[in-house]
Amino acid sequence: MNKAALAHRPVESFVYPVHSKKLVFRFQAARKDLKSCFLVFWRRDEAPKKIRRIPMRCTLRDREHDYFSGKAVFQKTACYIRYYFELSDGSQTVWYGAQGAQPTKPDENYFEYLYPNAGDGPHPPEWCERQIYYQIFPERFQNGDRSNDPPDTVPWGSSPSRGNTMGGDLKGIIDSIDYLSKLGITCLYLTPIFHGSSNHKYDTIDYYKIDPQFGTEEDLTALTDQCHKQGIRIVLDGVFNHCGYYFPPFQDLVKNGERSKYKSWFFPLEFPVKSDPPNYECVGYYKWMPKLNLSNPETCDYFVNVGKYWVGKCGIDGWRLDVADEIEGRFWERFSGALKKDFPEAVLIGESWGDAGRLVLGNRLDGAMNYLFKNAVTDWLAKGKIDAPEFDHRVNRMLSLYPEETRRCMYNLLDSHDTPRFLYDCGGNLQKLKLAVALMMTFPGCPAVFYGDEIGLTGANDPDCRRAMNWDGARQNHALFAWYRRLIRVRKKYGALIRGNYCANLCSSETGLYGFIRSDRGQSLYIVINPTNRKQNAAVPLLEPESEWFDLLSKETVSSEKTQKGESYYNDDIVRYESKLQTTMAPCSVKIYIQKVV
Amino acid sequence: MNKAALAHRPVESFVYPVHSKKLVFRFQAARKDLKSCFLVFWRRDEAPKKIRRIPMRCTLRDREHDYFSGKAVFQKTACYIRYYFELSDGSQTVWYGAQGAQPTKPDENYFEYLYPNAGDGPHPPEWCERQIYYQIFPERFQNGDRSNDPPDTVPWGSSPSRGNTMGGDLKGIIDSIDYLSKLGITCLYLTPIFHGSSNHKYDTIDYYKIDPQFGTEEDLTALTDQCHKQGIRIVLDGVFNHCGYYFPPFQDLVKNGERSKYKSWFFPLEFPVKSDPPNYECVGYYKWMPKLNLSNPETCDYFVNVGKYWVGKCGIDGWRLDVADEIEGRFWERFSGALKKDFPEAVLIGESWGDAGRLVLGNRLDGAMNYLFKNAVTDWLAKGKIDAPEFDHRVNRMLSLYPEETRRCMYNLLDSHDTPRFLYDCGGNLQKLKLAVALMMTFPGCPAVFYGDEIGLTGANDPDCRRAMNWDGARQNHALFAWYRRLIRVRKKYGALIRGNYCANLCSSETGLYGFIRSDRGQSLYIVINPTNRKQNAAVPLLEPESEWFDLLSKETVSSEKTQKGESYYNDDIVRYESKLQTTMAPCSVKIYIQKVV
Repeated sequence: MNKAALAHRPVESFVYPVHSKKLVFRFQAARKDLKSCFLVFWRRDEAPKKIRRIPMRCTLRDREHDYFSGKAVFQKTACYIRYYFELSDGSQTVWYGAQGAQPTKPDENYFEYLYPNAGDGPHPPEWCERQIYYQIFPERFQNGDRSNDPPDTVPWGSSPSRGNTMGGDLKGIIDSIDYLSKLGITCLYLTPIFHGSSNHKYDTIDYYKIDPQFGTEEDLTALTDQCHKQGIRIVLDGVFNHCGYYFPPFQDLVKNGERSKYKSWFFPLEFPVKSDPPNYECVGYYKWMPKLNLSNPETCDYFVNVGKYWVGKCGIDGWRLDVADEIEGRFWERFSGALKKDFPEAVLIGESWGDAGRLVLGNRLDGAMNYLFKNAVTDWLAKGKIDAPEFDHRVNRMLSLYPEETRRCMYNLLDSHDTPRFLYDCGGNLQKLKLAVALMMTFPGCPAVFYGDEIGLTGANDPDCRRAMNWDGARQNHALFAWYRRLIRVRKKYGALIRGNYCANLCSSETGLYGFIRSDRGQSLYIVINPTNRKQNAAVPLLEPESEWFDLLSKETVSSEKTQKGESYYNDDIVRYESKLQTTMAPCSVKIYIQKVV
Repeated sequence: MNKAALAHRPVESFVYPVHSKKLVFRFQAARKDLKSCFLVFWRRDEAPKKIRRIPMRCTLRDREHDYFSGKAVFQKTACYIRYYFELSDGSQTVWYGAQGAQPTKPDENYFEYLYPNAGDGPHPPEWCERQIYYQIFPERFQNGDRSNDPPDTVPWGSSPSRGNTMGGDLKGIIDSIDYLSKLGITCLYLTPIFHGSSNHKYDTIDYYKIDPQFGTEEDLTALTDQCHKQGIRIVLDGVFNHCGYYFPPFQDLVKNGERSKYKSWFFPLEFPVKSDPPNYECVGYYKWMPKLNLSNPETCDYFVNVGKYWVGKCGIDGWRLDVADEIEGRFWERFSGALKKDFPEAVLIGESWGDAGRLVLGNRLDGAMNYLFKNAVTDWLAKGKIDAPEFDHRVNRMLSLYPEETRRCMYNLLDSHDTPRFLYDCGGNLQKLKLAVALMMTFPGCPAVFYGDEIGLTGANDPDCRRAMNWDGARQNHALFAWYRRLIRVRKKYGALIRGNYCANLCSSETGLYGFIRSDRGQSLYIVINPTNRKQNAAVPLLEPESEWFDLLSKETVSSEKTQKGESYYNDDIVRYESKLQTTMAPCSVKIYIQKVV
């Protein structure tokens, strides 16, 4: 047994309460090293007569590790739960307790879980996991009110530059609600709409004022109300790591220097404050965006109040938090605590470009932008830089970073206002985009559509990815829109796509085929992806006995046959296959099988 | 290379700022698996011309793992630091980045450390690491004021029962300051002194009132003032997880049931609230101590204010926090944030009986009671249940759980009011106690003396461990007191005992001998322990070239000789030995060598 690879600690990333009578335990071992992993536990006041022993399931597997998970349910509050793990690799049994792996049962060296406090463990709002996000860059989505266009507005559809404006506004979004509703998305995420200098508004001047180019507070209220009427939620972009150069407190610092009462709101490095080059901390070395000092309690309070104001005033459903991982962890604890005290149903999604553990563990934010997912999909399907096993490694590793409840609330994107469009990255190959969309819509976590992707908008990195939305029906890709719409319907219809396990059943570097199972409470969906340019036969292993299967996309029906013992399938030791179905995968194609109800 | 054992994540337990221009990086690998581990890093705006590569040092080693540590210093703010690790086991080089171990240099898959915010990383008050604590159970330390003795007070020195009182009070502690000062301790920790029902006062009735049996607020102020004059600090016991049955809000709940305005302060399971058996949550199933609901903002505020009140009012230096790990993490974040905003020099030490990660990571508390240390020492030296290698495993594993800055602030005890006395556990063998004291005084983290241990007080588990302090000079063990005093002086004199590395250089299951090095900035102390009952020769490996060495305890001087290449020493691949000294260890003895200044 590879004992050095075993891992568990009595901290929130390895054990947490779902509610007061249910605990989740997680355990890590080397890949395929263990034949069994049991959680052995008892209450302090009941041992030894009521020792329980439940199997931990291997639910994720990357190139190096197996990740086990187990849930223990109690009749009384899950307090004073003593526990250890019993591990076997087939030839050796090892116990893992407070002193690590040992060759005998731990007598005193158990772990103890003390009390399932309400504030421990992830507690995203119940609605969060079911969202399909749609990201809008307001300046470029729809111009609904020409009266608020800036004087130098260029024609809609002009080539986007770093500085030009095309006139998009809140009214334009209101006008598009029917379109969005038809597409089927459930939650809008708007990049910043507060008064700022640039076209992207990440350089806020006034956190309490809607940018006049976009409209008014009344427009935001109208947008929220009309969205809510159609069952669509709205999340705004909270830019609290930094402000704009013209944010009055920063201007006060520029003017008054060391005597400014806002000195401790920022990070001046010397006085007087100058911007060429900047002698103050700023985000991404960008002088127009001075970094805010949120360790300063007054600054912290100010932005906590901004966070609460807009939820209370206009009924928004939460915040996407800009460069959240450049902000200190305890700010998020404070922000989240204060906001959710008043608005427990608000969601908080942090921007993160990598491992978002700092943001989501310890009950800080509910989820995070999942660029690890985006990069894995792009590298595999768009760029062909990695093969199916590497993709499987990457997504399993990513999923292992978060508790299951958080995974479901991750914001899974293919692209954003900060990246090239996926369609651009795959050289305009619509078929590849369709595979990626199908993957995103069937993957654990919330799918997120960047405006225009659904009608074939393309673009290189910022600013090109921020082209104007194309409302000319003749130039929209209707088949692509239909594909998005169809997969969104699939997403909404099958609960297993939201709460189900994720496990690859086909994964071959030789054929390039990749398939995975999403299963929950007896419902299984089998997704098969052929990213290659050749037609290929696939034998898809299934958990169910022989029966009829239906591809949701092609509508074709296939019968499965009993699986032969000894056939080698991917992850056969995580799940037990009962049958397999033979199918032919066209070049660059995807299938989604469900069992046909007889 | 054992790739499954490699571990690093861009989260606070693996990377954190010491200040804005210095980062600490940690990395884990299998025991003795790596020949080298380099941190490769650059600033986002400077690559690739300024890539730096610094060696990570293996600073801890347990049975399964090597724990590497490295510090990177920057000329500007340590923001946007991209990094990965370059690992070699002698035959193979592997790179570890955001996708785990890979066979090539990570091009895009680096980690990125974004910004060294002041609130991230451990920031204990600067004074904290230098403390030598002295724990007092006020009811049993000294009776300085007979007028406040309860009517049924039993004679001083009576056999302690769960309920009896002997008259100890704050005035008694004031009267003992000269004694404590002579002993040399630097910080008192008093178990609860607020108004409570029992003799231990963990069942608080009034958090704003000193228990009348112990004295008044004026007495506490006098105690604090007089201690401070003699350079002694004071930490009080904050019992915020639960209250006493007679705490008025709980009485209100008992009386008014569902209509009580304090309903959400507690966890009633049904109404009316009854105590036989209790139908509300309580600590340790003990009905006299109802658990407080600190997820309720009002309750949370109440106890944050209690915390601030006593620091502000009487000038105490911080809190030891009772059963801290049964309280939700975000309460500690809040408590710590609010207290340190007003009193940045206050220390917070949580009670924990195991891995205290939940309490100290994420910048919650400064340190924790170190029962993992206590148990390792007791099992090894008092009970003989484990041998030297197992002891070494356990303490290295324990140290690996915390950042270095936190390790130094751990409250390292041999016993407490909740355990048998160490002297009791070792069957009254004073020599063994002396070894344990020498170990505690030379170990990383703050030594903590439980009142009376220093004069030979013994006692089985609670209530016997809470015997009255013995002030009769004829019955105090003066030699033992002198031993404590001497080792406290050693602790204070040598900075390496506070900030130095910890590494075993002798560790043998056969001979039973155990030795370790504490070294910092060219100063090394070598502690050698012979816990066996036989005289033994030891060859102690040293980092320095041949020279003269001085045992601080026996005052003997020994010359070291050059180390032969090829000699096998414990942890020779963590440190490189230059010489060794031959010494004879008497049965059950300890030596502390320092280099003689010529």
